[in-house]
Amino acid sequence: MAIHNILNNTGEWLRGEGPHHQIVVSSRVRLARNLKSFAFPGWAKKHERLQILEAIKPQVEALTEMNDAFSVYSQDLSALEKQVLVERHLISREHAAKGVGSAVVMNRRQTLSIMINEEDHLRMQAIRAGLQLKSVFKMIDKVDSALEERLDYAFHPKLGYLTACPTNVGTGMRASAMVHLPALVMSEQINQVIQAVNKIGLAVRGLYGEGTEALGNLFQVSNQTTLGEKEEDIIARLHKVIEQIIEHEQNARQMLLQKKPNTLLDHIGRGYGILRHAYSMNSKEALNLLSFMKLGIDLGFFPEGCRQPIDELFMETQPAHLQKGTQQKLAADERDSLRAEIIRAKLNEFPRPDVGLPPTSSAPDGNGSQN
Amino acid sequence: MAIHNILNNTGEWLRGEGPHHQIVVSSRVRLARNLKSFAFPGWAKKHERLQILEAIKPQVEALTEMNDAFSVYSQDLSALEKQVLVERHLISREHAAKGVGSAVVMNRRQTLSIMINEEDHLRMQAIRAGLQLKSVFKMIDKVDSALEERLDYAFHPKLGYLTACPTNVGTGMRASAMVHLPALVMSEQINQVIQAVNKIGLAVRGLYGEGTEALGNLFQVSNQTTLGEKEEDIIARLHKVIEQIIEHEQNARQMLLQKKPNTLLDHIGRGYGILRHAYSMNSKEALNLLSFMKLGIDLGFFPEGCRQPIDELFMETQPAHLQKGTQQKLAADERDSLRAEIIRAKLNEFPRPDVGLPPTSSAPDGNGSQN
Repeated sequence: MAIHNILNNTGEWLRGEGPHHQIVVSSRVRLARNLKSFAFPGWAKKHERLQILEAIKPQVEALTEMNDAFSVYSQDLSALEKQVLVERHLISREHAAKGVGSAVVMNRRQTLSIMINEEDHLRMQAIRAGLQLKSVFKMIDKVDSALEERLDYAFHPKLGYLTACPTNVGTGMRASAMVHLPALVMSEQINQVIQAVNKIGLAVRGLYGEGTEALGNLFQVSNQTTLGEKEEDIIARLHKVIEQIIEHEQNARQMLLQKKPNTLLDHIGRGYGILRHAYSMNSKEALNLLSFMKLGIDLGFFPEGCRQPIDELFMETQPAHLQKGTQQKLAADERDSLRAEIIRAKLNEFPRPDVGLPPTSSAPDGNGSQN
Repeated sequence: MAIHNILNNTGEWLRGEGPHHQIVVSSRVRLARNLKSFAFPGWAKKHERLQILEAIKPQVEALTEMNDAFSVYSQDLSALEKQVLVERHLISREHAAKGVGSAVVMNRRQTLSIMINEEDHLRMQAIRAGLQLKSVFKMIDKVDSALEERLDYAFHPKLGYLTACPTNVGTGMRASAMVHLPALVMSEQINQVIQAVNKIGLAVRGLYGEGTEALGNLFQVSNQTTLGEKEEDIIARLHKVIEQIIEHEQNARQMLLQKKPNTLLDHIGRGYGILRHAYSMNSKEALNLLSFMKLGIDLGFFPEGCRQPIDELFMETQPAHLQKGTQQKLAADERDSLRAEIIRAKLNEFPRPDVGLPPTSSAPDGNGSQN
């Protein structure tokens, strides 16, 4: 499969379907594995990294899940192509920085992605839309078992799987869900939620993982520890917490609808108005305004048909996705006007939003809309 | 004529017609006059102020220009009614603070307004839309001559008309034009222009005169001195300067259109988008966004039919105008949502702006709009 097939087709998880997909954008599980008797990638010399690569890559490609897969050496990807894969969460930022000695293999549906010689010899992930942590874990667990039969993993009977970074030793597993929490942010309850989640040993991070900002009201919730707890238990615990977060977000939405409908409508209305009519927009503003549109769709202010286009814009307005269709690298201001243009064109296809926006007169603090 | 006739009908100058009306909102001339042998209003005791009032009011009402006039004692106006008159520039803020002993008389077209016992015994003004300083001066000069035949003005052969504040002594005249200068503000040339205007002895002030902010890119340009120059010369000089400012603003617009069309479109597009879809808006933001809409109409991005509704919104979204139709005084957040509602309803009647917005592809820095 060629790179353009990957770049030009949004993967399954980007289509925004799956249980609780209004609030849970995606579920992801990644496993870190290493081969016995080879140095970790960070310590291995170039020729050793190439040895590791040649030992692993054919086995990954031979997986039944990787039938008709996209398989590529890192040096054969352009910086822009790598950035597109990072924006889709198919490779990590760390992996995008690798050259000779690294590779990535992913299936056509873009639900499975296996990085070779990232921080560990193997970083394999499964990702799907909505809250599907259990099925996502099953997917990647099956791949892991198949590879374990063919590769000699570094495994310690007491510690479990050995990894380059001690924080991954044990299961080598990081399970996470990307959640969209605009009402918790708007009602200033988000910090409370983050603190509560941290207290029970889970991490809350921004859109692109550790140390990144929570743009577009998107948060990644994941397990912190990999030692002393079985994979199934970690997944079950995370699943439960995500369900609680969903409930908090839904309560916050109901509270805003009842107590501050005008503030809510104002955010959503301004979001739509600016997205629909701006001629220059950076990606940060785009994500934040798209978040309000997404909320507006969830609350029924816009028809359900707007959901997929808006979900797509979350990805299409990211810098690399924006530039993949253009011939040359764009300057920041050119990107900003192209981004605004793409958004305007997409929103232009929507029906006028007044159709969906309920009149404020039905709202407790409203003054009776004349729309 | 009853107060509701005044309150419910926007005056002639608000209808936005007249020479250069795109940039010059209105032209205004006011004269300060005092009666001989009475103390100035600030020094006069209450009984003396009542004497002055009874000496002047019948004479003002007897003017042919004041046929079917609205004439009212200050104590008979509510605070809200006074504020409406202030927002229309028909009475001054100072006069709105007066009670027993003061009055105001204005003609039906709201082009002539005569305040009795403001800072001076008589403050008379004429106001019209567009650049009409000469005709506006003629109007008020005729009224002044007629009153001078019937009232005994305090006049000094060497100094001219005597006034409560020495800065008005001489002609007692303040001539001003309200100009809309969004392009000079956007291109950061406005301070240069203000400094140049100050240097030749003219003042530039905000929307409501001395010490007020330049909201909505609206500026008042007026003469500073009243001594040593004939009225006609002051008017002619001011007229010339306003013509130069118009030219600067037009040049700035052309430069933005040629060099930064996307920035210009972005301001106008966002202005429209927010006005059209917000559910809460304070008066400051409303003025600033309406200013961009007005610019958009001037530049042909919106059809000419949008001009009057937008000009009306400049006034209708002011706090007192907003509340005059409601039964009780509104809290700030209630005003903000009512304001947004009125604006949405008015803009809802507009055709979709894409009709008027030229595709960016025709613009030098554009990327080819898909609209």
